[in-house]
Amino acid sequence: MNNLLKKTTKTIIISAVLLGLGTQAHAKKVIKWRLATTWGPTLTPFIDAPRNMAKMVEEMSNGRLVIKVDASNKHKSPFGVLDMVKAGQYEMGHSASYYWKGKDINTLPFTAMPFGMTTPEQYSWFYHGGGLELMQKAYKIHKVYSFPGGNAGGQMGGWFRKEINSLADLKGLKMRIPGFSGEIMADLGLAVTNIASGELYTSLEKGTIDALEWVGPGMDINMGFHKVAPYYYTGWHEPAAELQFLVNQKKYNKLPKDLQQILKNAMKLSAYDMYIQNYHMNVEAWSGMKKDYPGIQIKSFPKDVLDAMKASNKKLLTEKTENAPLLKEVLDSQDAYKLKARKWTKISDYLYLKDN
Amino acid sequence: MNNLLKKTTKTIIISAVLLGLGTQAHAKKVIKWRLATTWGPTLTPFIDAPRNMAKMVEEMSNGRLVIKVDASNKHKSPFGVLDMVKAGQYEMGHSASYYWKGKDINTLPFTAMPFGMTTPEQYSWFYHGGGLELMQKAYKIHKVYSFPGGNAGGQMGGWFRKEINSLADLKGLKMRIPGFSGEIMADLGLAVTNIASGELYTSLEKGTIDALEWVGPGMDINMGFHKVAPYYYTGWHEPAAELQFLVNQKKYNKLPKDLQQILKNAMKLSAYDMYIQNYHMNVEAWSGMKKDYPGIQIKSFPKDVLDAMKASNKKLLTEKTENAPLLKEVLDSQDAYKLKARKWTKISDYLYLKDN
Repeated sequence: MNNLLKKTTKTIIISAVLLGLGTQAHAKKVIKWRLATTWGPTLTPFIDAPRNMAKMVEEMSNGRLVIKVDASNKHKSPFGVLDMVKAGQYEMGHSASYYWKGKDINTLPFTAMPFGMTTPEQYSWFYHGGGLELMQKAYKIHKVYSFPGGNAGGQMGGWFRKEINSLADLKGLKMRIPGFSGEIMADLGLAVTNIASGELYTSLEKGTIDALEWVGPGMDINMGFHKVAPYYYTGWHEPAAELQFLVNQKKYNKLPKDLQQILKNAMKLSAYDMYIQNYHMNVEAWSGMKKDYPGIQIKSFPKDVLDAMKASNKKLLTEKTENAPLLKEVLDSQDAYKLKARKWTKISDYLYLKDN
Repeated sequence: MNNLLKKTTKTIIISAVLLGLGTQAHAKKVIKWRLATTWGPTLTPFIDAPRNMAKMVEEMSNGRLVIKVDASNKHKSPFGVLDMVKAGQYEMGHSASYYWKGKDINTLPFTAMPFGMTTPEQYSWFYHGGGLELMQKAYKIHKVYSFPGGNAGGQMGGWFRKEINSLADLKGLKMRIPGFSGEIMADLGLAVTNIASGELYTSLEKGTIDALEWVGPGMDINMGFHKVAPYYYTGWHEPAAELQFLVNQKKYNKLPKDLQQILKNAMKLSAYDMYIQNYHMNVEAWSGMKKDYPGIQIKSFPKDVLDAMKASNKKLLTEKTENAPLLKEVLDSQDAYKLKARKWTKISDYLYLKDN
């Protein structure tokens, strides 16, 4: 070959290779993200929601977006998830919004409110009643997007060492109960705390707490609470507890449009799926419970306790929203939707279940 | 340039162009599918479920899979959807499984059964209780995959021209009511038929039928049934009616893996979404109904009617399953799951709604 040939050939080959590589690189460009959860590595189904989401994203994006899910034993900061996503240390988080109420009261109402909406009512509020927009408004200051992350359905009221026959029996008890229902219990004279899932059983066994609420039979029985606190109360405080996905806004906005859609839909789907997975777990656990654990006593709180809870709820909400206009906006929106929706729920779900 | 140079350059340029075009062609390859629905073009939210699914698929696949949704006014065969998907005339369909019970009795139980499961119970059965596998088993003979396609929640019992005070008032009425509940009504002495949505109002107005059940207030009020039949009965027959997506197996199996995942997840998500959309529509319609349409009379069937329906249900199920082993397998699976699940539903959803 002469020099001209050599030079031209070289240029063209380089161009061709670059073109090829460029395209290949585009096709195979992998974006790697990390997600921090509040949950321990075996905490089904809470930990399954982000894991299923990540699996769907990877499959649907043909491996272009890979999200590694870190359980709390990895990052050691179960209640630091919002801070880590905010700081960009993790691109995503999975937790419960009401865990940040001490840092930012406006994040309180997006998980569950006492005497609040049921699961279909709450999803209707999120997706058709302005709830999702209000959640973005509340999280804007943190430069984080927040999305529904899985619903626990109607929760049980918790495990108690002794039977609660009156308001007086509650006074002085040390109880793990988060969110606004925790404030109600504090108002009724309990010493209230929040404890991460991994330490719940030990705290109850050692007497650091006398009572706790966790989720429902599907998750609770596995934790062994019944061994030390056999009185299991029906629910009032979290008729539909929704977990949350958190996404750092800057990182989300940089994603290609199709990956944004894949991510958004995978979060939404894994949230609904977790509701159904947890429902099934409750069904299985509840149906075998009385036979497998005859010591468990199913109870409902007596009327004077429920009346006091309702009165306290009303009083505290008024106090809390006095100087918190955004919190008031969200709670007013939830209340108005619940009032409207409950009329239909009573005709459809309730009336049918009454007779069947 | 000498000849060698010319020839080499040409080869390399052609290779480069082919490489480039090849990649471009791969990146832009568009698969075009069509989906036939049973629904008219404005039948929200039923028609929205396949449309939302198609939109999500297009966005998530970056335009690589485009699904055109044909309403029934396009293909003129609202009850021919299964046949068209089976024949490959359409790649996909969206309808209600129980519409094919006359052709194949095994497809009956996947939409709704009288006195059956509620929506969360039914989704739990589909995704964790073996329901989805049984649905594939039933549709295998048609070489079609079937997936949940949107739930209508607890349906209303229908619109009647006159009040039903006893079993005698039902006898001889002509009523549109599909599925197994239609067979019960026939057993109770009604003349039962199925009519596509577009002809429902006219049929009722003209007296072709005396009564009909459709869905719930969110969809029913728009149809104007209350103008001719103001007695609106609460539900017993479809506590959770699930629509179905149908996919031609051959076409589905030819899709690249990532598009299969995108399609599967978009169907699953749009199904859940339709449940919530319809819930919201019911909430809105119900809350304004009494004020906007004071003539509507909300009623529940009297006890002797409900008792007769239950007795007939039991009798017909025994007859129907005698020589239908697969139908029996599905119904036994549903019954066993319902029995187990209802215990939990009564403690969680029902008990809470009783007091709140």
